[in-house]
Parts: sequence; C-alpha cells; structure tokens
Amino acid sequence: MPVNYHTPTPAKLFPVAGVRLGVAEAGIRKLDRRDLTLLALDVGSRVAGVFTGNRFCAAPVQVCRRHLELGSDLRALVINTGIANAGTGEPGWQVATDTCVAVAQLLGVADRQVLPFSTGVILEPLPVDRLIAGLPHCVADLRADNWHAAAHAIMTTDTVAKAASRRVQIDGKSVTITGISKGAGMIRPNMATMLGFIATDAGIATPLLQQLLREAADESFNCISVDGDTSTNDSFILIATGQAGIECADASAPAYAALREAVIAVALELAQAIIRDGEGASKFIAIAVQGGQEREECKRVGYAIAHSPLVKTAFFASDPNLGRILAAIGYADVEDLDVERVRVWLGGADSEVLVADKGGRSVSYREDDGVRIMREEEITVRVDLGRGTARATVYTCDLSYDYVRINADYRS
Amino acid sequence: MPVNYHTPTPAKLFPVAGVRLGVAEAGIRKLDRRDLTLLALDVGSRVAGVFTGNRFCAAPVQVCRRHLELGSDLRALVINTGIANAGTGEPGWQVATDTCVAVAQLLGVADRQVLPFSTGVILEPLPVDRLIAGLPHCVADLRADNWHAAAHAIMTTDTVAKAASRRVQIDGKSVTITGISKGAGMIRPNMATMLGFIATDAGIATPLLQQLLREAADESFNCISVDGDTSTNDSFILIATGQAGIECADASAPAYAALREAVIAVALELAQAIIRDGEGASKFIAIAVQGGQEREECKRVGYAIAHSPLVKTAFFASDPNLGRILAAIGYADVEDLDVERVRVWLGGADSEVLVADKGGRSVSYREDDGVRIMREEEITVRVDLGRGTARATVYTCDLSYDYVRINADYRS
Repeated sequence: MPVNYHTPTPAKLFPVAGVRLGVAEAGIRKLDRRDLTLLALDVGSRVAGVFTGNRFCAAPVQVCRRHLELGSDLRALVINTGIANAGTGEPGWQVATDTCVAVAQLLGVADRQVLPFSTGVILEPLPVDRLIAGLPHCVADLRADNWHAAAHAIMTTDTVAKAASRRVQIDGKSVTITGISKGAGMIRPNMATMLGFIATDAGIATPLLQQLLREAADESFNCISVDGDTSTNDSFILIATGQAGIECADASAPAYAALREAVIAVALELAQAIIRDGEGASKFIAIAVQGGQEREECKRVGYAIAHSPLVKTAFFASDPNLGRILAAIGYADVEDLDVERVRVWLGGADSEVLVADKGGRSVSYREDDGVRIMREEEITVRVDLGRGTARATVYTCDLSYDYVRINADYRS
Repeated sequence: MPVNYHTPTPAKLFPVAGVRLGVAEAGIRKLDRRDLTLLALDVGSRVAGVFTGNRFCAAPVQVCRRHLELGSDLRALVINTGIANAGTGEPGWQVATDTCVAVAQLLGVADRQVLPFSTGVILEPLPVDRLIAGLPHCVADLRADNWHAAAHAIMTTDTVAKAASRRVQIDGKSVTITGISKGAGMIRPNMATMLGFIATDAGIATPLLQQLLREAADESFNCISVDGDTSTNDSFILIATGQAGIECADASAPAYAALREAVIAVALELAQAIIRDGEGASKFIAIAVQGGQEREECKRVGYAIAHSPLVKTAFFASDPNLGRILAAIGYADVEDLDVERVRVWLGGADSEVLVADKGGRSVSYREDDGVRIMREEEITVRVDLGRGTARATVYTCDLSYDYVRINADYRS
C-alpha cells in the first residue's frame, strides 16, 4: 500500500493539446498486461530530456541522447516495460534503433524524431519483434485523453499508477501541465528518474526548456531515493507543444515564472509519488537539510540519512533510535563539520521536537515525543548544519520486510 | 547463524606474553551479561590505533586519540558494551575521562596510559557509576588465558564471539599473534572497524607499529561492509608487548616480513568473521575488483556492489539477477569507464563463470550456472575494469528478512 497515495490521482488528468497517447499488450515479458506505450506529438512541439548518470546506461538512453542532439523537434516517444534493454551491448543498440524506425514508418516521421524508452530487467535481450508487432495497436489507440492508461502501462513493480495534472491561468490563457512517472525500486536518480514524462501546451524555446527541465529535475527526481541504486534507464522528459497561445523565448518572458512554478510542482508531485509507492514503503520521510555551505553538501547529508539501512529500519519499526541519524550525518563526508553546531528535529503532522544539539541529545527531548512522531506515516527529519544558508530536501521511505520480499521475488 | 563461522574459533587462542584480560558484569544496559572488559599490558608494550572517520565520533574515540598522541606506552584498555557513549556531547567526554582515571588508580598507572572503548546504542548516556563499580571485578579476573571471555564480553548484536590466533616461528623464536573483534551491524569501517584488538609478543617500534596497523586495516577492516553505515565508535588497536625476543626497529628488520604477513592474516580473519556474522547474513560474498587504474576506484566499485540493496536481496534469494551488479558498477562514479571492457565473473567453491563482457551478457553464460553458484554460501563476484593493474577485494553479506527484524528490534 503506497503511503497516502491512491490511484487514480488525480481523478482528472487534463489532456495536453498536441499530445496523443496509445497503449497496447505486446507481451514483452508477461502476457495479459499493457506493456507498450506510444506518445505522438504534433508538429511544433519541443522536447528536452535528462538521463541517468549510470555508465552502464541502457541502449534506449543512448539513442535518446543522440536523437535529442539532432534537434528538439521530436514527434514520438515509445516506452516498453518488462525488459530494460540495458547491459545488452551492440545488439541492444540495434533493437532500440529498429524500434525508432518502426515507429517513424507508422507515423510518417523521421527516425531521429522518435525517442525510445525501456524499463524492466537488466542484462536480458528485448524481444523487438513482439514490440514492433504491438506498435500498430498503440497507433490505433492514440487519444488525447489516454494519460491514465499510459500511466498504468509504464508500471513495473509500481503498485499504483503515478500522474499529476494542473491547469493554470497565465497571461489570461489557460495552460495545462500533465505528467506521468513510474518507479518503485532502483531509485536514486542521478540526472532524472526511472521514467518521468511531463507535457505542457505552453510554448517554451528549446534552451529554456532544457534549463527548466534541469531545474525541475534538481528539485524533484534528483531529490528522491528508495534504495540508493541509480538505474541504467533513468529518463525525465519535458514536452512543450506550444498550442496554448503562450510562448516563452527566454526566462524573462512574463509568463515564465508562473509556468516554471507549475512545472516544478508537477515534477515534485510525480517524484514524491514514486517514494510513496517505494518498494515495501510504509512511511514517507522528508529529510530537510539547512544551514549548509552549499546545496550539494545538504544533499549529501540528506542522502546519507536516506540511504542508511539502520535509519530506514528504525523508521519501519517506529523506533526513535535517533543516534543512527547522527551517525549518518557524521559519515556524510562534510569537511570540518562542527558537530557542536548541528541540530536535528523530528517532525510529524502537528509538531516538531528538537532531538539533538551541542553534539548530543537535547536536554529538552523526551522519548515519548519521539515515539509519537515515529508512529506517523509522514515524518520530517530536519537537520541544521549550522555553517551556511544552503538547503536541500531529500525524500525517502523506510526499509521493511516487504522490500526484501519484493526484491527477492522480482524476476520470478 | 553465521556463514561458515562457529564459536569458539579457533578452539585454541594462544596467550600473548605481556597481556592479561579480565571481564565482569557491570549492568551497563542489561543485566546478567558480561559487558565490561579490561586488558592490562606489561611495561614495555607499544600500542597503535586507528579510529572511525565519522564526524560524530564517540567520546571514548576522542580520548583514545588524545592519549595515543601523548605516547604509545599504554598500560590498559577498557571496553564496555550496551551504550556507545556517542552523540553524548561534553558529558560523554567526562564519562570517558572518569573511566580512565578509575582504571589508572586500580592499576597504579597514569590516566593517559588508559584507552577507553564503548559500543552499543548511540545518543544515550553511559551510566559511568555502574561501569566504575564493575572495574575491580575485572581486575580480579585478569588472566593471560582469558581471550575467549573477552571476545564474548565485547559482543553486541553479534551471534558468535570472534577471535583469531596464530603462533609462527620467526628467526628461531616463537611469536604469537592473537586478536578479537566484534560487530555485525553499522559496519562500513572507515579507518578501522567497530572494535578490533590484536596483540603480539613481538617487539615493533612505534612508527612501524602504526604503519603496520594502517596496512592491516586497509586490507581487512577497511574492506568490509554489512550495511554501509560507518559507526561512530570504530576502533582498531594493535599491541606489541615485545616479550618474544623479536624486535623490529623498521621495515627492513629481518623478522618484519613474516610478522607483517601474520598480523595482516589475523586482521583479515577477524574482519571476515564480522561479515560472516553480519546482521541477518546467510551468504558471505567477496567482491574482487581488478584492472582498475588505482586501488581506490577498485574499492569504490566493490562498495557500490556491496551496498546495493538490490544486489544484496538477489543474493539472499539466490537469484542470478546479475544486471543489478552491472548497474552498481555503472553508478560507482568511475570517470570514463568503458563498459565495453568490463568483465564480470560469478564464482563458487569449484567454478567460475563469465557473466558479462562487451557491455552485456556473455554469449557463453548459462542461467543454470548462475543459479547453481548463487545457491552456495560463499560466492565471489570478480570484476575486471579493464583499465589498469590495481585491485581490491571487498567483503559483504546479503540482505535478508532477518536484517530488517534485527534492526527493527535492536533497542527493544
């Protein structure tokens, strides 16, 4: 059961003018499930993407990078689940390329205008014949109001479909932003997350679109972790179809600030949905680190806490064994950290208590308060490093028996 | 059940001339268990130590560092379990200091000649009165053949006592090396491990003793990980009493090479014992990385694999989901890694199979072979990075339901 996240969320996903979606059962790895998704984009759309920092990045990621280098005038995205097409060498590259050729022929566009995405098991070959055979069914299914079906079709170990959508008034125009994401394990995105796609009907010039994508990733998908494992297939894509009558040539455009805020909000909602549905998750934990010299060191501290199996099991047990948090801060490799200045709070829905200061347990801290907050489903750990003004918030979940069960079973 | 490690091991722990040990029940955190250990060293002993890199290092670690700076002519080590005396601020420092004063008075030595060690729960105060009240019982128990009792008394979540001992002939003299260690969780030593103590009756000059200690740590305690959590209390101590009639003034001493080899072998045996008894461990996994440009990057790759919860749960399930290993290599932050040159083998007791090469699954790999090896209790993952001659081996265990159970229960 995801933590405070239920499908379908939201009930209403607004269509984005210029984007149509179709799904199909291709039987890539399992039968009787929709595992193939096609997004068709109208002429005039611009696309930006960021991808995994994993050196063993998947073949489709390599193809995406190349096609985006050739231009942002993309026309289609094709996504399969079941097999990641990662760790597949030269044959994997050929499969990803063949997929683009097949989509291009069906839609009457160029190969380089197609981006391929895969997610699933690494090191196994992708049955490209089945994928290509499924494509005509996706084309037949293309509809503007198919976002929910697409959110379902890109799931792997996810237990709920993840989507976010909002419609905002900017400069008197109605602008829509809708996105979907997937991922529950192998989640510690480095650049972007497993799979995240956001589309808006606003117009955004390509360099600005790429900048906005990076900013949104930095505050959303690049601030989450389930298990510390950076995937081979992480991809986060931002699409601007330009059909809403709003055009942002650069960051000084009047509409841009509001648009930026809305896009980042959608990205954060999608990223948090991944944590709420993290493998085996029973708690949603925000780690807000402030008082750092730079954002990077705040993130480092946040991730040290988020990745500690001891901290994560303590959250699962609702046990305020909070010395484990101090230990994680202590090994987060912050040069010259003065532990006397570090303060740690534990916060629930209604209250926040100071746990540690002056290098040790706060004299005001009561174990009862810790126990009460640890029992909640949503918990904030706030850390003040006491050495600057930078801040960053990292989102994670607990480590439960179910995490072990899911990952000991995943391929079977 | 530890993996291929049973207490008492070895059956015979050789006493080290110049070292006497005593244990007692002080009731630090729980009743009816021996939780206090004293090592008394003869005049002429030399001691070297390395300690945790955790910024929130425990008060006793700080006192140890100071006392070792004042000289290597130490006369006593005092070790308590139950409470780590870490994250305890200024009062914690006072407790560690008071402990040294009490030991010094009982043994008629100087305060600075005593090293204190603590292990247990972080962020809780250490009841120093109970500790001090237990010391006379330790003194009354001091015996040269008490190593087994000491190995038991320093345990926390350990399920077996850990010790190693060997007697070697060097230059016609019989030299003894005996050591004990503890630790099962919060194990990713950075400098040294939770608690490791090795004594020899050989004589080794202080600078050489310190050098040998660092070399031994680098090949043993600094190459293991259970959960990636670097403790606040890691300490590794090497004692040379000089009573065997062997004296090494520097590394060119004729006896040194054989002595060095024996000390490192004891350290590695103690470090591996910690992994075999890792919290919830059902598999012992050696990750041997070769072909790196430098040892540091080999270790980084080894630890990326060792820390991946996805890799660890796959080992627990005996599931050759080996793409997870490739993913971990890929995010280990090795600049310019050419994945086409990386090769990965999986090895059991009798055989080794090539799993991956040329950026993907090896054409010779058969899933049946992977399944067979994954079912063994001791598994080697061998990785060739194909870019140099450096190598390093990291030791770890799997991630099981029991790991979650133990750490969700630890304080209760």
